[in-house]
Amino acid sequence: MSSTFAALADPTRRAILARLSTGGASVQDLAKPFKMTLPAVSKHLKVLERARLIRRSKSAQWRPCYLETAPLKEAADWMKQYQKFWDESFGRLDALLLTMTKEATPVSGKVRKKTKKHK
Amino acid sequence: MSSTFAALADPTRRAILARLSTGGASVQDLAKPFKMTLPAVSKHLKVLERARLIRRSKSAQWRPCYLETAPLKEAADWMKQYQKFWDESFGRLDALLLTMTKEATPVSGKVRKKTKKHK
Repeated sequence: MSSTFAALADPTRRAILARLSTGGASVQDLAKPFKMTLPAVSKHLKVLERARLIRRSKSAQWRPCYLETAPLKEAADWMKQYQKFWDESFGRLDALLLTMTKEATPVSGKVRKKTKKHK
Repeated sequence: MSSTFAALADPTRRAILARLSTGGASVQDLAKPFKMTLPAVSKHLKVLERARLIRRSKSAQWRPCYLETAPLKEAADWMKQYQKFWDESFGRLDALLLTMTKEATPVSGKVRKKTKKHK
């Protein structure tokens, strides 16, 4: 998982993954939007390949790259153990908003009725 | 998000976060299970602090560390865009298993009845 996170710690590599999520692409295709040299893109692809986030076809001459999501799933599963923390934060925020709404609401009909009885 | 992933790209730092998910801890507390020197732990804590994955209390003399999960939520949200890929993989696996199960099931009662009629 360390190699997955290390590979994801670069905005260009994350953008390459986003591009590959729409389909396979050659090094030339990938270099265009980033205005990078082919060796620079190749270097990023090597990091992604070592982290098994992409695979490169050996059959075609242009060796297209494809997205591999198994390591991303593993990383997402690891993150799930912390999900309860932000769920709890939202739960506390909800409770706070509910309290604030209740405090801001004018006296309800039920309470008003009770007041009448006491007259 | 790059600093989040870079901070997570180390097993000791991930273990420190796991320990802090059970509650605040001092540098001394954190150093014990890892059999690391205090300066080595402090170095890891600085990386985690820069990535805003932890915060250090300034009130107490022992300066306890606490987990901060907002960057983890951001990273988890980023990963969600790829979830459809592994969901699709599992969908395909389910379909394959269903086909295999159907093929392996012995001839059903309905089919047997039809065979009798043709006698």
